[in-house]
Amino acid sequence: MNRTSSIGVFDSGLGGLTVLQALKRQLPGESLIYFGDTARVPYGTKSAETVIHFSEQIVKFLLNRDVKMVVVACNTASSVALRKLQQMNEIPIIGVIEPGAKSAINTTQSNHIGVIGTTATIHSNSYTKVLKSINPEINVTEIPCPLFVPLVEEGWIDGSVPEMVAESYLAPFADKDVDTIILGCTHYPILKQTIKRVLPEGVSLIDSADAVSIEVKSKLQELNLLAVETEKPHHLECFVTDLPQKFEELSRRFLGQDLPDVKLVTGDW
Amino acid sequence: MNRTSSIGVFDSGLGGLTVLQALKRQLPGESLIYFGDTARVPYGTKSAETVIHFSEQIVKFLLNRDVKMVVVACNTASSVALRKLQQMNEIPIIGVIEPGAKSAINTTQSNHIGVIGTTATIHSNSYTKVLKSINPEINVTEIPCPLFVPLVEEGWIDGSVPEMVAESYLAPFADKDVDTIILGCTHYPILKQTIKRVLPEGVSLIDSADAVSIEVKSKLQELNLLAVETEKPHHLECFVTDLPQKFEELSRRFLGQDLPDVKLVTGDW
Repeated sequence: MNRTSSIGVFDSGLGGLTVLQALKRQLPGESLIYFGDTARVPYGTKSAETVIHFSEQIVKFLLNRDVKMVVVACNTASSVALRKLQQMNEIPIIGVIEPGAKSAINTTQSNHIGVIGTTATIHSNSYTKVLKSINPEINVTEIPCPLFVPLVEEGWIDGSVPEMVAESYLAPFADKDVDTIILGCTHYPILKQTIKRVLPEGVSLIDSADAVSIEVKSKLQELNLLAVETEKPHHLECFVTDLPQKFEELSRRFLGQDLPDVKLVTGDW
Repeated sequence: MNRTSSIGVFDSGLGGLTVLQALKRQLPGESLIYFGDTARVPYGTKSAETVIHFSEQIVKFLLNRDVKMVVVACNTASSVALRKLQQMNEIPIIGVIEPGAKSAINTTQSNHIGVIGTTATIHSNSYTKVLKSINPEINVTEIPCPLFVPLVEEGWIDGSVPEMVAESYLAPFADKDVDTIILGCTHYPILKQTIKRVLPEGVSLIDSADAVSIEVKSKLQELNLLAVETEKPHHLECFVTDLPQKFEELSRRFLGQDLPDVKLVTGDW
């Protein structure tokens, strides 16, 4: 492993591609390996133990490909598995919770921050813990929105159904002084327009992708592991555990992102 | 394996409990082992290869518990994995497609049958194939309803959101002469009231659970494998791959069914 090695990025499915995009913008010279666990998506409705087990398998897969760093692009896995993954591995492993929380603290004026995420992320209280550790005075309102992931994975991102689901979940924000909401799941930026429409005007939505990519860059600099662009042509590899074609299609449709050949990983990897 | 052995029943999650209930009613003397793959639910959005792989693992688990028959209570697994499972195993393996299809043919007057199911079930055309093999003159309209499973697994079974989702999916039935619709996913009976409300009046909904349990009984009789009630006290065992407590709660809430201690299966079973 050296600075020409790739950065590994993983998510339960498609959502982590929003983080991948930000990494590509922020670090154009880096090689990236993306892993989407599409055979077992979603993670957010499952137990911590199960998500830890899946995450450990994926990190092992990425380490076998000699990555120099792992970005846990999934909020659920970041919430429940990050500490464990960091303890068990020597390379730096970066999650999305802390960068997103810092970014929200920098944005809020009312000091009341909202967090929306999967059931597992919200039940872990991971965002509240990090936000309060930065500023104990901050108020936090967390709301699970479990149906947003299947809506996105099914490509149902606007129109009356997603809007009604969003209205139903986000109603509690209407009469609160929340001025900043963390999109605490990498799928949610894809629903951003719908979410915006049902929220009171002027609420800022925080998408951790940019904050994470800045954190990744600074960590690589600190460790002297930043790729030097001239050294080796960089590349992007994508692996999924199921339905590579559907993955390519959805990526093109929602993120305008043309992926290189998406490879299928099967069996006991 | 003998006639006092259990019948194994499996599903991706909760839905197969509707089949379990019917089996208990139809065959009160039989011991049953239920397996819900809650760590990897849903199946209906995944590829045939992945569903076959998961199903094979589960059948192996059930065979290790000496079952005399396996009921594939999941429509997706029945659609894409049944033939393979039957070829690879010596005990009888029964799916839900054929019994449901026969029951629909016996019900329809207009000879136009609707089928709703997961994306995988509908794309497999399994219902159309079986329906046409029984009566080549029959018309079939198949519609995938991928969001119904997460709605049920989240406990969102009535109110305006499920109704709007149902309306959106089922609109094509409004101007057709379909008089019979197969609920081609074991989760869907739990949404029956909502589905009924958005369909034209007089449409019959076919829930394969009863038809399957009758098929199971006749197969056991044919093989002389029916349990004799006095021989051994029968029992019910439940295994899930994640979140046993959530499983118990949802079972109580939607099916009024109190399950015995639901056991968690982890690791590489």
